[in-house]
Amino acid sequence: MNLILLTDDDFTHSKQNRVQIADRRFDHIKTFYNVAADQELPVGVVGGKMGVGKIVSVSNSSLLMDITVTTPPPEPCPTTLICALPRPKTARKVVQCATALGIKGIYFINSWRVEKSYWQSPLLEKKAINNNCILGLEQACDTIMPTITLRKRFKPFVEDELPDIIRNRPSYVFHPYTGNTIRNIELLPDSTIIIGPEGGFNEYEIRLLTEAGCTAVSAGKRILRVEYAIPYILGNFRL
Amino acid sequence: MNLILLTDDDFTHSKQNRVQIADRRFDHIKTFYNVAADQELPVGVVGGKMGVGKIVSVSNSSLLMDITVTTPPPEPCPTTLICALPRPKTARKVVQCATALGIKGIYFINSWRVEKSYWQSPLLEKKAINNNCILGLEQACDTIMPTITLRKRFKPFVEDELPDIIRNRPSYVFHPYTGNTIRNIELLPDSTIIIGPEGGFNEYEIRLLTEAGCTAVSAGKRILRVEYAIPYILGNFRL
Repeated sequence: MNLILLTDDDFTHSKQNRVQIADRRFDHIKTFYNVAADQELPVGVVGGKMGVGKIVSVSNSSLLMDITVTTPPPEPCPTTLICALPRPKTARKVVQCATALGIKGIYFINSWRVEKSYWQSPLLEKKAINNNCILGLEQACDTIMPTITLRKRFKPFVEDELPDIIRNRPSYVFHPYTGNTIRNIELLPDSTIIIGPEGGFNEYEIRLLTEAGCTAVSAGKRILRVEYAIPYILGNFRL
Repeated sequence: MNLILLTDDDFTHSKQNRVQIADRRFDHIKTFYNVAADQELPVGVVGGKMGVGKIVSVSNSSLLMDITVTTPPPEPCPTTLICALPRPKTARKVVQCATALGIKGIYFINSWRVEKSYWQSPLLEKKAINNNCILGLEQACDTIMPTITLRKRFKPFVEDELPDIIRNRPSYVFHPYTGNTIRNIELLPDSTIIIGPEGGFNEYEIRLLTEAGCTAVSAGKRILRVEYAIPYILGNFRL
């Protein structure tokens, strides 16, 4: 946690800029900061600006801060991420990692090689996903939540929704068996990147995606876990 | 596991190219492959070549394969990674991720902000580290183990060992408070990358590292977990 993220619920309403922190954030603050009156901590308001919170008082279970937030959050990453739903524990890592990288649009979609049971996981409930977004923002010092969309049917997604997501931007589907490699095309950040399941999309799925305008790109000979492939691909953007 | 890695112990010696697989690899194979005589599975010999293993017979607890290995492993990544020791669970991820990315030289070093207790973790024992290297190789389809070195004293490492590690190659220390950013310098793969602990190296450590010839580089405004920073940095290499 490099930023203490605040929501409406944290404001005490006794004073406009006063917040009370009492949950896991308080435990974290006690462990990693010198918790005493007048100490300043890095804070940000979800959806808003960042700045400092000056500690007013500390009890056994909570602290009061007066915050001053004037710095805008960092620029978002313009990339849209579409990812075949991985196993739920990995999906959690993908949400945290993509959020930390500044991605604001994340889709989890179905694919022939996605296990059906993954869609039933409690880790995909809205609250669990939101918590993982928060962890990503706290890590990266950002305040703008991403939008996470789940789509359980591949074909209607690709045919009906994907064109509006791609718009006039480039779109890349990462696929091991293709002539284009990440090193010989100019990968642009204002784009859509699509990552398949373990074992890759099948030929039918790749055909639908390329018919929808996506360029198939190989990320190299080495097969990376999806949570490492995402930062690796984003590192390859030419700005 | 995208490659079934074999060691000397797996060879039966009844026939030169025959192996018997009986541990977690057998459990994995049963789960993800069609296990029947004549089926072919992707195999590699640690330190050697890759190819296929043709199943000869299967019992309840093991299988026999005859292997044919003629493909060399993928090119190694020429980068040397030096990383302030993170918490042991994260160190395990760093080993897996860096190994999957093809890095063959990994150093964990001390720093003022590294918690002393981390050095006592059983996860840093040779066998545990080797297991994580194996997992990284199995993921990425590689057979060449990296060399992992632990150095508990910062100053002697930087003054006495680092020059020989860097040699005549560029070296970059990733540090948030610097003018160079990852996007405005040409980052070369045949280099040494140095990543600090949570909270970064202190000013004294940065001074010693820059005196040893390292260029301080910021990876951007967003603070990434070390296991995501590594693939992100490697993605930024200009080849």
